[in-house]
Amino acid sequence: MAADPRLISALQPQRIWDRCDALGRLSELEGGLTRVFLSDEQRQVNELVLAWMREAGMDARLDAIGNCVGRYEGERPGLPCLMLGSHLDTVRDAGKYDGMLGVITAIECVSALHATAARHPFAIEVVGFGDEEGVRFGSTLLGSRAVAGTFDPALLDKVDANGVTMRDALRDFGLDPSQIPAIARRPRDVLAYAELHIEQGPVLEAEGLATGVVTAINGGNRFNIELTGMAGHAGTVPMGLRRDALVAASECVLAIERIAASMPDIVGTVGRIEALPGAMNVIPGRVRFSLDVRAPTDDKRRAAVAEIRASCEAIAQRRDIAMTITLLWEAKTSPCDPRMQRQFAAAVAEEGGRVHHLPSGAGHDGMALVDITPIGMLFVRCKGGISHNPAEAVTLSDVAAGARVFARFIAAFTPPSEGNSP
Amino acid sequence: MAADPRLISALQPQRIWDRCDALGRLSELEGGLTRVFLSDEQRQVNELVLAWMREAGMDARLDAIGNCVGRYEGERPGLPCLMLGSHLDTVRDAGKYDGMLGVITAIECVSALHATAARHPFAIEVVGFGDEEGVRFGSTLLGSRAVAGTFDPALLDKVDANGVTMRDALRDFGLDPSQIPAIARRPRDVLAYAELHIEQGPVLEAEGLATGVVTAINGGNRFNIELTGMAGHAGTVPMGLRRDALVAASECVLAIERIAASMPDIVGTVGRIEALPGAMNVIPGRVRFSLDVRAPTDDKRRAAVAEIRASCEAIAQRRDIAMTITLLWEAKTSPCDPRMQRQFAAAVAEEGGRVHHLPSGAGHDGMALVDITPIGMLFVRCKGGISHNPAEAVTLSDVAAGARVFARFIAAFTPPSEGNSP
Repeated sequence: MAADPRLISALQPQRIWDRCDALGRLSELEGGLTRVFLSDEQRQVNELVLAWMREAGMDARLDAIGNCVGRYEGERPGLPCLMLGSHLDTVRDAGKYDGMLGVITAIECVSALHATAARHPFAIEVVGFGDEEGVRFGSTLLGSRAVAGTFDPALLDKVDANGVTMRDALRDFGLDPSQIPAIARRPRDVLAYAELHIEQGPVLEAEGLATGVVTAINGGNRFNIELTGMAGHAGTVPMGLRRDALVAASECVLAIERIAASMPDIVGTVGRIEALPGAMNVIPGRVRFSLDVRAPTDDKRRAAVAEIRASCEAIAQRRDIAMTITLLWEAKTSPCDPRMQRQFAAAVAEEGGRVHHLPSGAGHDGMALVDITPIGMLFVRCKGGISHNPAEAVTLSDVAAGARVFARFIAAFTPPSEGNSP
Repeated sequence: MAADPRLISALQPQRIWDRCDALGRLSELEGGLTRVFLSDEQRQVNELVLAWMREAGMDARLDAIGNCVGRYEGERPGLPCLMLGSHLDTVRDAGKYDGMLGVITAIECVSALHATAARHPFAIEVVGFGDEEGVRFGSTLLGSRAVAGTFDPALLDKVDANGVTMRDALRDFGLDPSQIPAIARRPRDVLAYAELHIEQGPVLEAEGLATGVVTAINGGNRFNIELTGMAGHAGTVPMGLRRDALVAASECVLAIERIAASMPDIVGTVGRIEALPGAMNVIPGRVRFSLDVRAPTDDKRRAAVAEIRASCEAIAQRRDIAMTITLLWEAKTSPCDPRMQRQFAAAVAEEGGRVHHLPSGAGHDGMALVDITPIGMLFVRCKGGISHNPAEAVTLSDVAAGARVFARFIAAFTPPSEGNSP
């Protein structure tokens, strides 16, 4: 079912572009972009976003945790909704597309529906989540978890860098923390959650594609690995008598690269390393390094971790090095609904594009929404894969392509059957 | 020519042992050993050492830089000397054999010569160098450089951690800095320099030998190597699109190990490594690491450095990583005189031991003396190769074996011909 051509021509990509610029100027950081949960800058952003929502034909309001929520009714009032959204907060010294592009594009799509007086057998809601990055209180996905009903009230006691609790920050923002549980949605009221987001990686650029269909928000593990050999004088201990922990760690780093590269869609990264005692003329007796493994399915991730672990243990054993591995963090995969993936793929094809599927290595609000509804995501190419950085960049042409695909997806949306739910 | 059996039986190994203990107690560090240049503890050590020298039949005095110098005349007064020695200062939290064992064993050998009324066609001098480790003023070999005539007077302006200049420290110690140039020996007055020292490495222990003949004090190079790739999100950049500086560095570390291990007597060590930005979830865009290469000949060292450099450059190039290498330090090899090596080997054989030759990976006073005279060294096995550490240990049996070999070497000493000089 092709979308109404009037819908596509009603989209105004330049308006999306200008609105990203406008939100990008609302920052606590002079000459850069930093906008955290419940800040004055977020208040200004919310006013703009709520106004844009209303202008697009939606009822719009701030919910109890500070999300901007706009609702565009379907063929009749009160129908379950297709929820669209992304987040309005940023990391420190951020780019202006991470999060915002998804919210503004969703509003633009609804605006186009409104302009063509299109009504569907479902409502559409657009949510601009107040916190996804977790910068201010060190806990991520606050907005989407509240909507999914998984917001932990104990978090209200968390304090920011100035000692302000989240509870007080919400009150100072004019919100009532006791009402947070009431904004949780019932699964039957949300047919699905769909999000457009910049890729934050280099894959689409390498593929030469404006958009890509996300297969899953990858799960991940983080570990600390410590290797203990024997420190010694760099001049007096012959190579054959050494138990150099850094040489062993180097073999492990290469094994991690080899194993991750040998499995499709797995990434493995050693981001931190420390050699002790850390003197130029002393053979390292101890090395600690981090391991971050991500995968689009939990089975793949567990298999990769098991192979990496066995390989590192074999390296350590062969070199007479003691090894300990400590799990620091684990997040399950949030798979994208297969039927929604097909619907996004159809929309890409309708636009005349080649369909490329890819996992999301970064986290997104869908990780919270997946607890109550099927999720789907569309990625838009970003320059050099750079994100969380002022150099984050997209092209107007890609913004337009993303908006057209997203609008086609919405127009053709049919709810995933319950059997397809994750 | 076998040594007089009376000479060997006059040696008192237990006295060497006890004197090492006695010097080991003279420390600024309670419960450990730290004794730096021109300290109160060194004054006490000097008093003991000068008294032991006199007891052994030597004229003994402190020279202008604080070395203890004892002289045992030969068949007639004023003959050129065989110089024996080592150092009396320590690193921080040191062991009690590094340096001291060589001084005390040399005194014991002279004492045995004196007891047997042996006089040679050369004088013997024993020097307890006041500074070899360079802990207090950050400059090593001060005592032996003064004797070799290569002490740089500009060093007198160096300050210690308390802001005291070396010049003032010398004066406070009762010495006259202006007299330092006068203690430089003329090459014709010193036939050779011989030193007994603990190995500070694990080779003799692995070989099951009490002593070993040193072939050279290794030269060395230190470098900083910096690799620059591209930082990126550990979740979003697929393995095939990465330019991970730490993976490249890990390949370099393994190449350094492989190249050093493939060349006899070469050691190559990466003691420091730093990955930037150093976050668990960020692909390292930049890595800095140190490289320390030592070799018993300058040719071998240059060949090893060239091969390591080429190998690292090839790794970097293949991975599209930029590499810079910065030379921090270079020390030429100080070869041990071949004829003195043969004389030490003969003394080991006379003792009934298997002769093992090995380079010294650590620095020693011979590095300064080699500028004016042939040098030779005898290593004594130490436990686990551990040194610069309170756990530094030798056995009484090895101390005795070392003293016997050293005494046999002295008794049979014939000056290296000029043609053999380095």
